[in-house]
Amino acid sequence: VSASPSTSPAGPTVVGVDVGGTKVLGLLVRVPATGPPEVLSETAVPSEAATPGVIDAIADVVVDLVGRAPSDAEPVGLGIGLAGFVDPAGVVRRAPNTPGLLDADVPHRLAERGDERLATLLRGPVVVDNDANCTAVAAHAVLAPDARHLVAVTFGTGIGGGLIVDGSLVRGAHGFAGEPGHMVVDPDGPHCPCGQRGCWERYASGSGLGWLAREAAASGRAPSLVAAAGSVEAIRGEHVTAGFLAGAADAVTVVDTYAGWVALGVANLVALLDCEVVVIGGGVVGAGDAVVERVRSTIERDYPAATAGRGLRLLGAPGGPGGGALGAAVLAARAVERNGPGGHRH
Amino acid sequence: VSASPSTSPAGPTVVGVDVGGTKVLGLLVRVPATGPPEVLSETAVPSEAATPGVIDAIADVVVDLVGRAPSDAEPVGLGIGLAGFVDPAGVVRRAPNTPGLLDADVPHRLAERGDERLATLLRGPVVVDNDANCTAVAAHAVLAPDARHLVAVTFGTGIGGGLIVDGSLVRGAHGFAGEPGHMVVDPDGPHCPCGQRGCWERYASGSGLGWLAREAAASGRAPSLVAAAGSVEAIRGEHVTAGFLAGAADAVTVVDTYAGWVALGVANLVALLDCEVVVIGGGVVGAGDAVVERVRSTIERDYPAATAGRGLRLLGAPGGPGGGALGAAVLAARAVERNGPGGHRH
Repeated sequence: VSASPSTSPAGPTVVGVDVGGTKVLGLLVRVPATGPPEVLSETAVPSEAATPGVIDAIADVVVDLVGRAPSDAEPVGLGIGLAGFVDPAGVVRRAPNTPGLLDADVPHRLAERGDERLATLLRGPVVVDNDANCTAVAAHAVLAPDARHLVAVTFGTGIGGGLIVDGSLVRGAHGFAGEPGHMVVDPDGPHCPCGQRGCWERYASGSGLGWLAREAAASGRAPSLVAAAGSVEAIRGEHVTAGFLAGAADAVTVVDTYAGWVALGVANLVALLDCEVVVIGGGVVGAGDAVVERVRSTIERDYPAATAGRGLRLLGAPGGPGGGALGAAVLAARAVERNGPGGHRH
Repeated sequence: VSASPSTSPAGPTVVGVDVGGTKVLGLLVRVPATGPPEVLSETAVPSEAATPGVIDAIADVVVDLVGRAPSDAEPVGLGIGLAGFVDPAGVVRRAPNTPGLLDADVPHRLAERGDERLATLLRGPVVVDNDANCTAVAAHAVLAPDARHLVAVTFGTGIGGGLIVDGSLVRGAHGFAGEPGHMVVDPDGPHCPCGQRGCWERYASGSGLGWLAREAAASGRAPSLVAAAGSVEAIRGEHVTAGFLAGAADAVTVVDTYAGWVALGVANLVALLDCEVVVIGGGVVGAGDAVVERVRSTIERDYPAATAGRGLRLLGAPGGPGGGALGAAVLAARAVERNGPGGHRH
């Protein structure tokens, strides 16, 4: 067979989708064999992830992007990243924020839509993966293609993680690898909904940021945050992020404390995995280089075992929520290269 | 070329060596392509690891075992495990307990010995690796050959770790992967010589066991340990192990506390790596199934995020110090299979 345009040296064109809490974001991406992936088009559809309609939003985004593809770059693979854990067969096994996808075989659900262009795309590989895994793959492709060992950590409502070890994404025995949020960092710490105490997520997630701020506010150390939120109890991570970006001194102090907790967990990951690159993003960490810089200086000061002589590179994650869609696209492109554009995952 | 007996279906015969604190232990091992490795002979030479003479002890052990090899099983590879970190070129980069090997290219140092049988063996692959990595490889080969994801943790003066991810040993960017002892599990905990505070090693190593016992004794809760050691300050991990094996109630209580700290760190590793098997050994953990059982029940009770629905297998490490030598032998045999018996690592 002659090479199709999609498998030319320019690389396959694929669709990458990120299923976020309030919208579905999609990218049409060309992924060359070497060099960074190239985003050809982008679209987003508002969608409450917690509703069954999320599958329709995904289909809308994909159909929109397929329609926009240039004739020499017809998409031949689909990648989808979501906040959950996906088993080796591609079935969503844990997805607290997208119950509409739980236990769903997403490709089959999309196929039920009956759209002809969507059906054509679904004949190619379809990859569904955890969004933090997608962030790790995107960061690896864009920021550090030469790294053999890279960890990505995303700080949202919870904490997500993606591990690249010896150049490959690690999924673990059940698809749950890279769940650093439930590392216990203080056995006497606050209770976690998971049933443990002192999980990293209790301190270093967006929820943790709000908790740290409420602790500060309760002892009178966060007046601007109380004013912004209306009460101590109403303070959330978003108030801290806004205050930090506006330069409010009390918010900056809370972010310093928060950065210390982020640094602790990152240092633990480096001690264990000896990775040369750590990528962090999401929440207040993604709000600017200043937060990443605070985490970096704290690691160097307080965690010498993790950093001495290692030349650790700590980087901000690329492309915000788009980073997850980009990584999903890269995973889809790799599946195309492995199986051919006509090959199916199943 | 015709297949030599050493590469027959019975598998190559190799020498595996473990460099311990007070002795060098060696095994002559046949490693079949499938099934567990078979130990043909064993020898040990007392040696203070902290002296330059340790290289002579290694040579003595190897020469002894080569001399004992049956004519149809001449050894064609050498593996050496030691308490330290070994860079990708095989040079020892960190070895607090064996300074005589630091920065040493061990194969070249052995070759200087000028022994003819040793020189013949050194023409085959020589693999030098961290002893906990060797324990992981041995446990994988003997206890869980079907596991894709296995973590081994050795509890001695410090804590060592070996990670098998997707079936392969992980060495990390600098050969330091799997150093769980310096995961911080309590940021307000005691200072660690590494410069951090509250490292897992401060609680869950043999030194940590002694510290926990002295803390108990200082508040009058370990009378039999004070009696055995002569004073609170003189209590060491060994006193606790002996008391535990003798059934002393205060020692059992200290071991229960200790098992809780072991469980915490093991749960963290499982949360992060989603491994189906964890192997623990060394120190009081290696003193009997009762300790492993305490760790297992504590994980199930206190760390649901690590265990729910995962069917985690927590096992005692095989073969005591011999486990490290066995793993070193398996690594050497794999190098023989990869390079052929005449191929050299360099």
